Amino acid sequence: MKTLVLTAEDIKTIARDIGLDRIMDETIAGLESALREYTATRYQSPMRGGFDYRSPAPGLIEWMPVMEDEQSATIKMVGYHPVNPAHRDLPTILSITLNIDVGTGHVNSVVDGTFATAVRTGAASAVASGVLAQPDSTTVGLVGCGAQAVTQLHALSRVFPVSGVLLFDIDAKAIASFAKRLSIVGLDKALRIQAATPDDIMKKSDIVCTQTSVAVGDPPVVNDVAALPHLHINAVGSDFPGKAELPASLLHRSLVCPDFTDQAIQEGECQQLEDDTLGPDLVELIQDSARFQGHRERTTVFDSTGWSLEDHVVNRVLVDHARRLGLGQQVRIETINEDPRSPYSGMTRLAGIAAADAREEQGS
Amino acid sequence: MKTLVLTAEDIKTIARDIGLDRIMDETIAGLESALREYTATRYQSPMRGGFDYRSPAPGLIEWMPVMEDEQSATIKMVGYHPVNPAHRDLPTILSITLNIDVGTGHVNSVVDGTFATAVRTGAASAVASGVLAQPDSTTVGLVGCGAQAVTQLHALSRVFPVSGVLLFDIDAKAIASFAKRLSIVGLDKALRIQAATPDDIMKKSDIVCTQTSVAVGDPPVVNDVAALPHLHINAVGSDFPGKAELPASLLHRSLVCPDFTDQAIQEGECQQLEDDTLGPDLVELIQDSARFQGHRERTTVFDSTGWSLEDHVVNRVLVDHARRLGLGQQVRIETINEDPRSPYSGMTRLAGIAAADAREEQGS
Repeated sequence: MKTLVLTAEDIKTIARDIGLDRIMDETIAGLESALREYTATRYQSPMRGGFDYRSPAPGLIEWMPVMEDEQSATIKMVGYHPVNPAHRDLPTILSITLNIDVGTGHVNSVVDGTFATAVRTGAASAVASGVLAQPDSTTVGLVGCGAQAVTQLHALSRVFPVSGVLLFDIDAKAIASFAKRLSIVGLDKALRIQAATPDDIMKKSDIVCTQTSVAVGDPPVVNDVAALPHLHINAVGSDFPGKAELPASLLHRSLVCPDFTDQAIQEGECQQLEDDTLGPDLVELIQDSARFQGHRERTTVFDSTGWSLEDHVVNRVLVDHARRLGLGQQVRIETINEDPRSPYSGMTRLAGIAAADAREEQGS
Repeated sequence: MKTLVLTAEDIKTIARDIGLDRIMDETIAGLESALREYTATRYQSPMRGGFDYRSPAPGLIEWMPVMEDEQSATIKMVGYHPVNPAHRDLPTILSITLNIDVGTGHVNSVVDGTFATAVRTGAASAVASGVLAQPDSTTVGLVGCGAQAVTQLHALSRVFPVSGVLLFDIDAKAIASFAKRLSIVGLDKALRIQAATPDDIMKKSDIVCTQTSVAVGDPPVVNDVAALPHLHINAVGSDFPGKAELPASLLHRSLVCPDFTDQAIQEGECQQLEDDTLGPDLVELIQDSARFQGHRERTTVFDSTGWSLEDHVVNRVLVDHARRLGLGQQVRIETINEDPRSPYSGMTRLAGIAAADAREEQGS
């Protein structure tokens, strides 16, 4: 009984073969479809759990589980360490995702979750924006220009006629390198990309995405300035108690839709709202989208804390392509002996080694 | 940045090289040492979470996390499917364990947890029995003769002068094959092994281990008969709300020590007790062992629901030996690009493939 191990290189091969646009499109479509079919009996998705600490670096290690009834459970292990890019040349988010067969407990696959997290977080914003933003949105504002900004913009560009991008980051290098990082999906040439202040971004954009590593207790990363009346915001960076990217006044005058309410009221922008002022969650938004499209004329916020259902969907996209292309290694990780009641089968100590030990003991 | 993938075959190689006795001894010693040094700041160990279901087979999939401060987090994913041995020729327990660096979130290792779970569950019983059972215990009774029974007996034989074993299982085949399954550690010849009724086991044993797949709502697997006054019981099988292996009357007249109190009162034998009648947990038992050794003359119970600290210890034993012996594969699973802010680096679609697609589109 083997486990598929899918590495960074395998994922690169998938991307080179089918293209990043198709990976993003399939993730968006897969997520929409999962949300449309979602019921509380079809999926179990408890809140993620995690460890948080200040040392040796400020960080979080979290586990994000979801189970699709009668099918499989996906559990993503994800580390969030904001000093990684500057201090260690590593992504802020590092992750591995396991998928487990519900019939036997066998681990079907062990897959990189780093690339997948960036893709599915973009896809989730595209899905929410598809309901809440104006369909002819052309200007996207990005506050925070790290890894997640690339996939936010990529995802939105698959759903909206984006032509202009306004950028802000506290790190000038992140702004300077952004166009180059977009070149892989051809958006560097297709879009007019300009640096801007957070206030200008808020005033001029049809859709704003905030994906910062805002620290607990820090002020919001944008101000509640006079924005376009139909502004839709995807708030991606707030995912911890005490963190907030958006000012409370902005939230109070907006329809705020959490991805996963229980989590968003503890870790997301929804921390700043009373429960009775929350908008629909992502499931309700998609299952009753006609009703909520009326909000396209007013300010709306998607409070994206990250949901295991999204991980389940993108992981399936990657694994399905890997199996089709024959990628990845099939590895027998779990100890499964011929007699399932015999944990020690085949573990007899090699006679030569035991004899050498005995000689050593005699000699000592 | 690579992840060590340690397979069933690698673990067999470790066992053949150093011997199962040494793996067990090091796990017992490592667990005792971790318990002795345990503080609530040195380790974070939240309760495990899980999915439980009746279909396609009755089962549980659980995640068991622990973090050692400033070091690493260990998260074991474990499936528990009692029909696996009979219906699928698979172990009841299948598992993979991840160890994650606390400084960066990098996954250090992906290791089989199936063998490790059996070993550490045995080791935990040996550690608890070391305090609570009589040091000259010679007769061990086993109720339930599956995979866990092998490691329970093996672990106890490393700490006590065991000479006789009494066996019971509802499946005669499990009893018949037990001696053969012990032969790998040489205990089939060293011990007098006999089948017995649960009542005889309770009357004649110095130490009893219960490791059954008792179902929720089923009666206890042993009766509260006239046992030896110093009987110590390791109750290993009860690990779910509503499950119990031992009769309440027996628990009420015993010192009952849970491995991890929060979990044991929800899932273990401790469900049957009031909080104020619980004995010390495993940490207290080891840190204050002189005090609790006084209970060796009376009936004691170790309520073993399974604790992530045990997984952390045994995983380290296996990984340390693998590194020393140069075993396992070093695999780049996580997508880590030269520019950590560029999730799409190196994913440019291959020109040849894109061109072929274009031709196909033109032709259609």
